Amino acid sequence: MQRFTVGDYLLTRLQEIGIGHLFGVPGDYNLQFLDRVIAHQDIGWVGCANELNAAYAADGYARCRGAAALLTTFGVGELSAINGIAGSFAEYVPVIQVVGAPASEAQKRGDCVHHSLGDGDFRHFLRMAGDVNAATAQLSAGNATAEIDRVLTTAMREKRPGYLMLAVDVAEAEVAPPAAPLDVAPISSEQARRAFRAAAEQLLGQARRVALLADFLAGRWGQQEALARLRQRRAIPCATLLMGKGVLDEQQPGYVGTYAAAGSESGVSEAIEHTDVTLCVGVRFTDTLTAGFTQNFATSQLIDLQPFAASVAGERFAPLTMADALSELETLFARYGERWALAPHAPLAEAVDEAAYISQTAFWRAMQHFLQPGDIILADQGTAAFGAAALRLPPGAQLLVQPLWGSIGYTLPAAFGAQTAAPAQRVILITGDGSAQLTIQELGSMLRDGQRPVIFLLNNEGYTVERAIHGATQRYNDIAQWNWTALPQAFCLHGQAQSWRVTECVQLEEVMARLQAPDCLTLIEVAMHKDDLPPLLRKVTACLAQRNGG
Amino acid sequence: MQRFTVGDYLLTRLQEIGIGHLFGVPGDYNLQFLDRVIAHQDIGWVGCANELNAAYAADGYARCRGAAALLTTFGVGELSAINGIAGSFAEYVPVIQVVGAPASEAQKRGDCVHHSLGDGDFRHFLRMAGDVNAATAQLSAGNATAEIDRVLTTAMREKRPGYLMLAVDVAEAEVAPPAAPLDVAPISSEQARRAFRAAAEQLLGQARRVALLADFLAGRWGQQEALARLRQRRAIPCATLLMGKGVLDEQQPGYVGTYAAAGSESGVSEAIEHTDVTLCVGVRFTDTLTAGFTQNFATSQLIDLQPFAASVAGERFAPLTMADALSELETLFARYGERWALAPHAPLAEAVDEAAYISQTAFWRAMQHFLQPGDIILADQGTAAFGAAALRLPPGAQLLVQPLWGSIGYTLPAAFGAQTAAPAQRVILITGDGSAQLTIQELGSMLRDGQRPVIFLLNNEGYTVERAIHGATQRYNDIAQWNWTALPQAFCLHGQAQSWRVTECVQLEEVMARLQAPDCLTLIEVAMHKDDLPPLLRKVTACLAQRNGG
Repeated sequence: MQRFTVGDYLLTRLQEIGIGHLFGVPGDYNLQFLDRVIAHQDIGWVGCANELNAAYAADGYARCRGAAALLTTFGVGELSAINGIAGSFAEYVPVIQVVGAPASEAQKRGDCVHHSLGDGDFRHFLRMAGDVNAATAQLSAGNATAEIDRVLTTAMREKRPGYLMLAVDVAEAEVAPPAAPLDVAPISSEQARRAFRAAAEQLLGQARRVALLADFLAGRWGQQEALARLRQRRAIPCATLLMGKGVLDEQQPGYVGTYAAAGSESGVSEAIEHTDVTLCVGVRFTDTLTAGFTQNFATSQLIDLQPFAASVAGERFAPLTMADALSELETLFARYGERWALAPHAPLAEAVDEAAYISQTAFWRAMQHFLQPGDIILADQGTAAFGAAALRLPPGAQLLVQPLWGSIGYTLPAAFGAQTAAPAQRVILITGDGSAQLTIQELGSMLRDGQRPVIFLLNNEGYTVERAIHGATQRYNDIAQWNWTALPQAFCLHGQAQSWRVTECVQLEEVMARLQAPDCLTLIEVAMHKDDLPPLLRKVTACLAQRNGG
Repeated sequence: MQRFTVGDYLLTRLQEIGIGHLFGVPGDYNLQFLDRVIAHQDIGWVGCANELNAAYAADGYARCRGAAALLTTFGVGELSAINGIAGSFAEYVPVIQVVGAPASEAQKRGDCVHHSLGDGDFRHFLRMAGDVNAATAQLSAGNATAEIDRVLTTAMREKRPGYLMLAVDVAEAEVAPPAAPLDVAPISSEQARRAFRAAAEQLLGQARRVALLADFLAGRWGQQEALARLRQRRAIPCATLLMGKGVLDEQQPGYVGTYAAAGSESGVSEAIEHTDVTLCVGVRFTDTLTAGFTQNFATSQLIDLQPFAASVAGERFAPLTMADALSELETLFARYGERWALAPHAPLAEAVDEAAYISQTAFWRAMQHFLQPGDIILADQGTAAFGAAALRLPPGAQLLVQPLWGSIGYTLPAAFGAQTAAPAQRVILITGDGSAQLTIQELGSMLRDGQRPVIFLLNNEGYTVERAIHGATQRYNDIAQWNWTALPQAFCLHGQAQSWRVTECVQLEEVMARLQAPDCLTLIEVAMHKDDLPPLLRKVTACLAQRNGG
């Protein structure tokens, strides 16, 4: 029988937390472990063009599957990926990063080996990882199983990345298989739960106007169904922040739109802010999503649910999980919901724009019609993400955006990861020309794997979002101009791809009509005016310009 | 008159240390500073497709011009670049990184702003930068001029990166222009210098066989001419390690080849190791360049010159600069050189390989004939760099390799940087298909700027260097197959490019014959066998496989 190694142990645990694929780039310090991956029945290897893209792909995968894993080599590989990991940390995405490291003996001797800084210190990158991971560990033959369990448990509980430094010899060390499953479920105290219920009842029992504001942390902690149940009790006004879009069913009665504080579309902030009680579930107010922190709530009006604690009118209850708090609220909804005002009817704003060229308004209207239930939509930071705020998502559709970390280029590899996680769903990527340049080579991995995403490349000749903030005509906001429609064919030798360039609305609609179930990767270059902005972005950039000093 | 700001002060100092271009990617936290860059008479802005590529480009520029500067935004930008900075740190390349950061007031309040981790701590990335920079500073209106001077002085003295965190408001603060130039020259103690001379004289005065081994640190500290003068006194056997190739004039009498310890070509290690005295100048022994630390010297035989100290038979003298130590040695060469054995004649090995397909042997032989004086050659880690070890460089030619940090993909953006630094020189990039995928988009920047590098893309269908170490037939060493010759045209809309695919030696030679002075960017895809290795790499990978546990 084959020896059971630290590498095998790690793969067993990764599978246990729901991981079916390992993203990364091979390097000579991780090849032995990779042999185990290739031999594994249920975990597939997904090679990427570079490590940052691999980290983005893992992040996209985790947003669809709940967790992901990334394999890089020491130094060069892990530092290339670290911006992706930092994004996963900022936005609460559990990505387990495994770093193949030089042999323990070489580390002990302080050898001047490749991929080190040459100073004999092998803990530089472990220390750096500490700032952007929930937990890190340098594995040894002796501590490996305990440390793997600790790092994975912490990462899954906190929904943030975990880092494992795995020397070539440690990966091969023999260990016993796991004796018991990991325990990653957080718990509430019965006392906190009772006290929360009492405080919430006092507030909700007297209320007439109650609203719900949900955000991305509710999605990360898997509360979509609990929120839908709550809303079935009473169709109070509901909204999400852009980052949490998709957490609420946007077709269910009560949904009023994307909340962006003073940047919201007409009626949304009134419905959410002008209340007796606003129930916030997993909300984080960030600058770009609130037009510069213009949200307007009194503490006395808020019930705020976070992953491990809740507050009612400023009084904090912990430890209390979001799930347990929502379960208490469901009881209160049943008891008091009838007294609360129903949400106003919020029809889809059918903005009319009769110009032949493709304005932002026209593009997003066409996109609204293009969407199907179950689509996975990725919108890159810039005009794409802020434009997506105005969409009404179909049932089961998911939107992946990264507005807090805001790393441009993230979505193209993330789309590769999302499509790997959900091969049967239609993946729609909407990205700008400036953003796409950062990570374009992952088109090659999509094509290698026969993926069929629909990619809308909004070509506004540079960094339009930055032009709106500062330097409208400065050449630093221009970029190299590429022959976009030629790229998919260049990134594959045997694969299949199609591409179009559209400049008028009628062309865009014609192309969209062919793509209900595309049979190969499709890139549509959409020519847009370089100073055209979605309405939300216009408000947000004005605010950012002012915060940065004009 | 316009206000003189911290941004202006920084640009003045950057220009003073020889910097004529600023590489980077714009972001909303650095746009105000960028206005000053654009307005500057003598510093040009060079936008790159992404930040890692920008860091590599800056590194390549610094290797040609002595220093470089990089501008990124906070968080996302700087972390994307950090692997490039770490490479500059490991391999002693002074790159000044300027990071545009959120306004001081937002930092003080701990605002949850974009590009932060959302936890109110704005010093995460400053701390992380500390591991891979010689000096870091968080600039304020009060400390900016002193801190800029400290960081730049340290970076230039130590030839390593320096990091400046520049908040949007700090960049705009008014300061006085520099009063005096920076003082970056290191100094020797007269006592150390005298003691070194006496010790070196004792050793060299009795010697019959003296050899010189020079490496990259001699190049970083600008000792190429001092070394040439020394060798004019006596043509003793001379070699460099791969990393230092180009530091010695390889056409000057005495040059015996590239030293790689037990991995050296026939005769080289004998000439350098079997001596009474071997003079090491700026040498670092790293695993891949010594076939796993197989160098064989007795301490009693060594005179070792480092940037700020020297050792003679194990006795250390400091502070003593490399320049001062070399100047003392020149006197001793004049006095005793006649007694020392001359180097054996080292003819160019004209390996014959009559196969029609392009073997590694045939490729490097053709490359040898292709090279011209003054060429800048970049060879990526893998078959390219190790193959380049066998070249005899023409006068004034420079080789850029990164064998200690060994980040694959480095050379393509570095070639962009090198060509920016030296627009009149022919830049030759030799890279593998695996390596080129990581950073391919910088072709677009080359084309935008009308650069005319000659790019040899060695297509061996994946990571050949890793196949040689481990997993020869494992699919993780395969990569997505691209249509390489279509890429240059796809990465430009108005630019000009040409490309060929060659599979036979005669085709390669025909194409090379057209490229003595190419008039546009040229990519030559060279089809090679996936298990063919240059001889040095065969020895090195066998050793690495053994060190990694097989």
